[in-house]
Amino acid sequence: MTARPENVHQAQLLHLLRDEGARSRAELGDVVQLSRSKLALELDRLAELRLVESAGLAASRGGRRSGIVRVASHLRFVGIDIGVTSIDVAVTNGELEVLGHLSAPADVRDGPAAVFEQALELLGKLRAKGVATEIHGTGIGLPGPVSFREGMPIAPPIMPGWDRFPVRETMSQELGCPVLVDNDVNIMALGELHAGLARSVDDFLLVKIGTGVGCGIVVDGKIYRGVSGSAGDIGHIRVDDHGPVCACGNTGCLEAYFGGAALARDALAAARSQRSPFLAERLAERGALTAEDVSAAAAAGDAAAVQMIREGGRQVGKVLAGLVSFFNPGLVIIAGGVAGLGHTLLAQIRGVVYHRSLPLATGNMPIVLSELGGTAGVIGAARLISDHLLSAPA
Amino acid sequence: MTARPENVHQAQLLHLLRDEGARSRAELGDVVQLSRSKLALELDRLAELRLVESAGLAASRGGRRSGIVRVASHLRFVGIDIGVTSIDVAVTNGELEVLGHLSAPADVRDGPAAVFEQALELLGKLRAKGVATEIHGTGIGLPGPVSFREGMPIAPPIMPGWDRFPVRETMSQELGCPVLVDNDVNIMALGELHAGLARSVDDFLLVKIGTGVGCGIVVDGKIYRGVSGSAGDIGHIRVDDHGPVCACGNTGCLEAYFGGAALARDALAAARSQRSPFLAERLAERGALTAEDVSAAAAAGDAAAVQMIREGGRQVGKVLAGLVSFFNPGLVIIAGGVAGLGHTLLAQIRGVVYHRSLPLATGNMPIVLSELGGTAGVIGAARLISDHLLSAPA
Repeated sequence: MTARPENVHQAQLLHLLRDEGARSRAELGDVVQLSRSKLALELDRLAELRLVESAGLAASRGGRRSGIVRVASHLRFVGIDIGVTSIDVAVTNGELEVLGHLSAPADVRDGPAAVFEQALELLGKLRAKGVATEIHGTGIGLPGPVSFREGMPIAPPIMPGWDRFPVRETMSQELGCPVLVDNDVNIMALGELHAGLARSVDDFLLVKIGTGVGCGIVVDGKIYRGVSGSAGDIGHIRVDDHGPVCACGNTGCLEAYFGGAALARDALAAARSQRSPFLAERLAERGALTAEDVSAAAAAGDAAAVQMIREGGRQVGKVLAGLVSFFNPGLVIIAGGVAGLGHTLLAQIRGVVYHRSLPLATGNMPIVLSELGGTAGVIGAARLISDHLLSAPA
Repeated sequence: MTARPENVHQAQLLHLLRDEGARSRAELGDVVQLSRSKLALELDRLAELRLVESAGLAASRGGRRSGIVRVASHLRFVGIDIGVTSIDVAVTNGELEVLGHLSAPADVRDGPAAVFEQALELLGKLRAKGVATEIHGTGIGLPGPVSFREGMPIAPPIMPGWDRFPVRETMSQELGCPVLVDNDVNIMALGELHAGLARSVDDFLLVKIGTGVGCGIVVDGKIYRGVSGSAGDIGHIRVDDHGPVCACGNTGCLEAYFGGAALARDALAAARSQRSPFLAERLAERGALTAEDVSAAAAAGDAAAVQMIREGGRQVGKVLAGLVSFFNPGLVIIAGGVAGLGHTLLAQIRGVVYHRSLPLATGNMPIVLSELGGTAGVIGAARLISDHLLSAPA
């Protein structure tokens, strides 16, 4: 059992040291609203709790040299990012720097027992390399709706065997440390907040375009989950009353137009009708088509593929334009596997959003592609549990 | 100059007493996380600052009778709600109970000098009745985009002479008290949070359908304003690429379909084409038509008017369905002049939202008509300044 900060001052100091790195006591005194003696008291107490440690002396600022303090170097957090077809596991230090990261293909449909066995195996490999002995906390992201409060997935559509599986309790017992569970989009947003393009942005949106489409909402530097935890579930917003039928049973949902599943469907149609010679050839070679094939086709200049990406970007842009007018974010990040379609997609989304949203809302608002790629999820998962463990008792 | 609470404990106690009414020291001790002696210290200090006062003794809970404390009875807040065609002014006590409320027709296009002269006149009448001597703070709502930080309207479309007029500074000097300024939709949302159907709801949306359409967003019991203050500006979300041209120059905006201006336009067309005998008669009588005439026509069973309301409700519902999936609120309140169209409108909005939004998001989410009517704005404006004055220093 790891110690936790005892009050808001200790929590504030820990967050500062985690996010900004080692600081001298004098520098900390400049930032926090504490008397010199009170600051010394809280730092000493954090050292006793083994949450911070000293790291030498700072250069003199005129008088006595001030001691440098940092987050205790033995702290280790684990981030586990379960995707539909992959598992990522990383170990970080107390500053959430990735000390080791392993990724493996997986199938979420194999159920929680098999998937977590694989995750624990990856973690075992990382530990064997010596990156962690004790683990102080673990964050887990899942590719479907999660009840954050209960720490379990709720009726996830593509995950047989996962409904209400007690992920938090099971993994907490397995790992012997506190665990928090959230959906994959929220942990990616936390990753961007911690180490990505959203570092200095309090209110932003992360739009993940993978097999489906989802949105992470950050308000005032914290994930906004909504009243029943479904906030950001934008894949089934209707973009056209007369659109294609969606897997959910409704018509014209965003996901029925775009995302990995819709792209695979459209790619197959384009291959069969010979509208895309590139995709027809791929289909003949491999017997199936995915969003990655559309990406490759577009890169090779295939007109039908470029058209698919443009049309998809336009639909995402239409939904996003409304959300930007409503939410007035400081930044929109586009991420996820299909974001690999890159600048054609981005250009299309930008065109629609900047044209349609309120000028006041888009004035200084960048729309960018994530630069973290596959690490956003694991860093965000580590951040999720770290935020919890380094916060003051309620 | 009124005293302010000196720390977060004092602020918490003041908010409790304001929102829940007088409480015994023993009852307060049950709710706040303070030792008995610390609680007594903070309450004594608040009494010295003249922010609370004693109000007799509570019934015994077994031992000594505990003293009852309440917000100081001399505290007075003023709420001013400027509409496009009306001014509302109210004076409240420290518990935000309305002690006096006056309303008058006005024309916002007369400019800030004329409008505030009229507002001050109404306030003068209220003071003459003896409801307030000293005023401790004033909140003001304006019917257009407001920079909350700067305390002034920014490029409001229908308010000549108001652009960047320093409302906060001017009125603060005029009234000799702190002033805060926000848009009319946000203050209505605060009114609902304080005294309306949203009292126990942390995350909700207030959709105001007046001349235009706007949305107040409450996150965790606080107004969410977005990065540049334009959050909730949903009137120009596009509902149809091929829709009517909007006053903003784009096509198919929500406001181009519905709201006071769109209804007046459609009413005129229905009257001239004789599709609505009721509206044709009204037009002949009065020479012009408004949203109120559509309401009257619908009440009289006029098919064309009912059709207009249904179609408008459907467009509002389409936009709202997406926002509900995205934001997952605990409650949606429909308010504003056109909300007077009542249950026909509500039924239509409900139908579309419940049909189209994610089931997880709408599961327990009520969609209701405001019950506060004309007082939501003034109560919310008083709450805005009260929240500020009763909060702890940063």
